[in-house]
Formats: sequence, C-alpha cells, structure tokens
Amino acid sequence: MAELGPGEGMATDVAEQAEGYARLLDAGLAPIAAVSRRIAELKPRFVLFTARGTSDHAALFAAYLTEIRLGIPTGLASPSAITVYGARPDLRDALVVGVSQSGGSPDLTEVVRVARDAGAHTLAVTNNPDSPLADIAEMHVDVLAGKERAVAATKTYTAELMALLLLVESVRGIDAADRAELDRLPELARGVLADPTATQLAARYRFADRLVTTGRGYAYPTARETALKLMETSYLSALAFSGADLLHGPLAMADPDVPVLAVVGDGPGGKAMGEVLGRLAERRADVLTVGSGAAPANAVRIPTPRVDERFSPLLDILPLQQLALSLAIARGEDPDAPRGLKKVTETL
Amino acid sequence: MAELGPGEGMATDVAEQAEGYARLLDAGLAPIAAVSRRIAELKPRFVLFTARGTSDHAALFAAYLTEIRLGIPTGLASPSAITVYGARPDLRDALVVGVSQSGGSPDLTEVVRVARDAGAHTLAVTNNPDSPLADIAEMHVDVLAGKERAVAATKTYTAELMALLLLVESVRGIDAADRAELDRLPELARGVLADPTATQLAARYRFADRLVTTGRGYAYPTARETALKLMETSYLSALAFSGADLLHGPLAMADPDVPVLAVVGDGPGGKAMGEVLGRLAERRADVLTVGSGAAPANAVRIPTPRVDERFSPLLDILPLQQLALSLAIARGEDPDAPRGLKKVTETL
Repeated sequence: MAELGPGEGMATDVAEQAEGYARLLDAGLAPIAAVSRRIAELKPRFVLFTARGTSDHAALFAAYLTEIRLGIPTGLASPSAITVYGARPDLRDALVVGVSQSGGSPDLTEVVRVARDAGAHTLAVTNNPDSPLADIAEMHVDVLAGKERAVAATKTYTAELMALLLLVESVRGIDAADRAELDRLPELARGVLADPTATQLAARYRFADRLVTTGRGYAYPTARETALKLMETSYLSALAFSGADLLHGPLAMADPDVPVLAVVGDGPGGKAMGEVLGRLAERRADVLTVGSGAAPANAVRIPTPRVDERFSPLLDILPLQQLALSLAIARGEDPDAPRGLKKVTETL
Repeated sequence: MAELGPGEGMATDVAEQAEGYARLLDAGLAPIAAVSRRIAELKPRFVLFTARGTSDHAALFAAYLTEIRLGIPTGLASPSAITVYGARPDLRDALVVGVSQSGGSPDLTEVVRVARDAGAHTLAVTNNPDSPLADIAEMHVDVLAGKERAVAATKTYTAELMALLLLVESVRGIDAADRAELDRLPELARGVLADPTATQLAARYRFADRLVTTGRGYAYPTARETALKLMETSYLSALAFSGADLLHGPLAMADPDVPVLAVVGDGPGGKAMGEVLGRLAERRADVLTVGSGAAPANAVRIPTPRVDERFSPLLDILPLQQLALSLAIARGEDPDAPRGLKKVTETL
C-alpha cells in the first residue's frame, strides 16, 4: 500500500460497498439461506454473539434482529469470562455466533471452541473462509467483501451487516415486499455514496477533539460504529450512547462545545429519539442528524433514503464513514494506517 | 438539599458505603439467600439482565459472576427491543433480572412485565421495595442503601454490587473462606475511604477535557462506572473500554494528552491487562492505575487492598468516586445536582 496516498485505500473500500451488497444478494444468498434453514431446524433457545471492535457492532445489529424478528433471546458474550476466567457455561440448545472480519482473533476462536465442547451449535461469520474461526465453527457464513485495503474496517462491516440481515430474515423467510426492498439497497447505497454532503461537512469538525454519537434500536450500532471510526481514523474522543442511556448521566456533559451526531430514522427507533433531541436542544448542543427522520430546526442534516428501519443501518453508516475519512485527511492523518493499530488484533 | 454546600450530599453518600456493605452482610443476607434458594430450585437455563446507567454496570458485574461462578449463560437485554419494537421473545426457562436504584424506570418495568407474560421468572433488584419494578417482579432484592442525597449514584451502586454478589454466591453456597473475606470488606472499605490519595490526585485532571478508562473482566464494570461518574459530575468526555476492545481501534486515539485510568488488580483480569498497559506505554499515554495490581514504572497509582478479584469492584470504585467528586468541586461544579439530569430517568 506504500504507493497509495493517505486514505486512498479507505476511499476505495468505502466506494465498493454497494457492490458488496449486490454480491451478497446474488451469489451470497443461497449459501446463507442454507445456514438459515439449518438454524431453523435446530431451533436454538437462545443465541449468544461474540465479537470485538467493528464486528461487535454488526453483532449488536444481529442481536436486535434476532430478538425482534425471531423472538429468540440473545446476549453478547464477553470472551473474557471464558478466556480469562475459564467459565464453562451450559450451552445446550444455544447457538453461539462468532463475528470477525479476519476470523483470526484467538479469543473468539477459543470462545467458539469452548462453546462447541459445551454443547452449543456454533456459527462463524467472517470475511475469510480459511480462517481459524471459520474452521472451528460448525457452520460458516462468508461475507464475501474481498480484501480490505485500510486498517479501519468499512466494507467488511457493511458486508457483515448484510450477511447477518439475510441470515436472520431467511430463518423466518423473506417475503416478496422485503425481497424487493432488499434488492433496491445496492442502488440506494450507490446514491448515498455519490452524495457529497458528508465529505463537505467534515470541515465543520476540523478542530473538535470530542464528540457524542447517539441512536436507538437498529440505529444504535450505527452510532457505535461511527464513534469507533472517528476514534481510529481521526483520533477524536467519540462517545456513543443509546439515546436512552444518554439521558442517564452523560447528558450532563453535552453543551454547545461537544458536537452530537444523532442517527434518526423515521421508524420506531427514530421516533423514540424525539425526547433525546429535545433534551439536547435544551442543553444547546450542536446536533447533526443522519437518516431519513425529521431533524430539529437548528440541526445540520445528512439525509438518507427512507427504507424499513431494519435496513437503514446499511445506508446510514455510509456517509458517516465518508465523514471519518474526510476528517482524517483534513487533519493530516492517514486513515489507511492509523497510529498504534494492526489489522488483526490478537487479544487473549 | 438547598442548605448543603456543593458536593456535600455526594460526599456523605460516598462515606456511607462501608456501612452499606455491613448492612447487607448482616440484615440483608437472609432475605437475599432466600431468593438465591428459589433461583437454585428454578434452575434457569439463561439469565437476562436489564438495567440502565449506573445500574447497568452493576448488572454487567452480575453477568460475569453468573457465567463464571454458576456456569449459566447470560445476556444484557436491551429494553428497546421490547419497548420500542415490540419484541416478544420466548423466555421459558429464563430468569430476567431488572436492576434499578429507584425501581421507577418505566422501560425496565415494561421489560419485566413482558418477560413475566412470556414465561420468564423475574427478579427486581432495587433500593425501593415500594417501586413499580419491585411490584411487578416475582422476586425482589432490596439493596438497603437508604436515601441517596446526590443525583450521581454512588452508595446505591455499591449496594447493588454487594447485593448481586451475595445473590449469585448464595446460589452456589458461600464457603467459610469466602465468608471470612466478605466479612472483612466493610473494614477494608473504611480504610480505602480514609485514604486521601484520590482526592489529592484530582487536581491533576483539573484541565483535562477527555479521558479513557479501562479494565478487564470483573474490573470492566468499574471502568464503565468511573467514566459515567466523571461525565455526570465533571462533564469530561470519558470513554470506557474493556482492555481487549481498547486494542481494537480506540488505542489510536491514546496519546500523552489523553489521560488513562486503568483498573488493574492482581487476579486473572488484572494480569490480562499487562499487554494493554504495554501498548499504552508505547503510545506514551499518561496512566493512572487503581487496584492491587502492579503498576507500570511511570504510572501514578491508587492502591487498594488485595482481595479475591470477584470482590475488588467493591473497593476499587471508592477512590474513583472520590476522584470524580473532588474533580467536580475543583472545577466549580456541584456534583449533587449535575446540569441537565434528574434522579429518576423516565425513558420509554
């Protein structure tokens, strides 16, 4: 990558996401649906997701989907209970899902191995079918994103979102209306990626050193992933809160000097943000909203197309990745190779 | 509270925590053990905790304990899946635990009501036996903390920690060695609260506007709660990460201008922080360690007594509450009444 200019790798990764959606809806769907059929037969009583970093945000999205769409209780398992403290939970009737772009994190591989020994059914969702995680799990879903150029994950994140969405929806069966709306997503994503609004807005945050992101329900993973992207590319202190948690304490921190990025759609989660936006306005916070929902009078807005709220995380994150990329470059940083980071993080 | 000076309410709450531990070990233990016996009979296949803010950190501690000590898989349930999206998960064989100081959050009450209808056994852990949450749940544990003066929760947090610890340990049975160590905690807490180190160190962060907290395993809830206390009393942007997650991206943000508070004991979680501290040193981060573990050569340190790592969250948070209190006062703020906050947060 030495021959690329700063951020050119990330820019290329970001631009490929519409094609990533199309690939999963085309070549990816049949193998994913086969895994879904197997899960439907297994009828797990509960689903535990295990993941770190960006993949943890995709897992959080999948956890909401699993609870809401399948009525199966879910949890996000902390690897350290197993890897550091030697916990050996009784996992009969459980499905344990490891999500990892590289499939190379030793702690997730260990969690899935222990889960298998403890009677769980196991599934790996990765961008590398030859990885240790894919190898140890009973089932595998390949997110088919191709090699990622930048250290900061973008196209592998959205490929995980789409793969997990198709996986969960295929367990209950995708109806014609949903299928039609899913098939529109590559084209809608192309339109969002072509919109210059986010890139132009980056200049606004050139001198910010801290920032809050927020969203509720399906939009909360988007808020979390945005904060991580801003931390790892632009070195901001970016704090992500669910809209409800923001009101439990962190709201005190909000003032006109701490910008807020709020993900606000027009489904149930977006509507539930109304109270949060009102409280932020009382604190005279500087608010940028992203999404298809209505924005407060004084807020800057990055609109995205109106789709079912389940699908909006696949669109709303795109301008926020562009914002992180442009902001990093405006600050003279290289988001392709953030200081202090490696592509595969080997924690135990 | 108008007659109290800034932070006097919080200071009094903080000082009462050793007595809170003694009260739970004395009058509190028998009713808690009765609930534990009932849970042992019910043999739940999985446990879902639901909580917000400070109580969510106590729930996180209880989730680690439940997985590690009881071998029961756990999850932290997002209320919004149920309250915003109408999810109705199949909760037969589940225990759903709502944790809330006030017991007055409508969303948690609704989650527990839905869980009960969906076949779950339900437990409320609150500081108010007359609250809606205590009323709706099948079982109740009173954390017996008495009325909290400040809006920022301190003694109700540690009372929740102790009540949940006693609850989980009583399910498997408390042996003589653990009982002896538990009985020492009020006296050890008194010693920690009498140590002026944390209060003196507050001056060091007078001009910081952002900060990172970190810990692993049982110490991670302490890192999360510390960040929340600093946000709600001193209006810092405080980011909490598990040590492992810190290496997945946010580490890039660390530099000598972003202070780090690391909770480092000398049990398995503390030892697993070794790599994290090494990577922070490479980034020349300014590190303060809290706990009984070894600190890096250049780090400032707040020592706490060496106890089993399961018990250290009850001691390690105390100097960090003092730090938040002193820092708020040094900044001219009143931690008893943070701007923009109410004692009972009513989210739906």
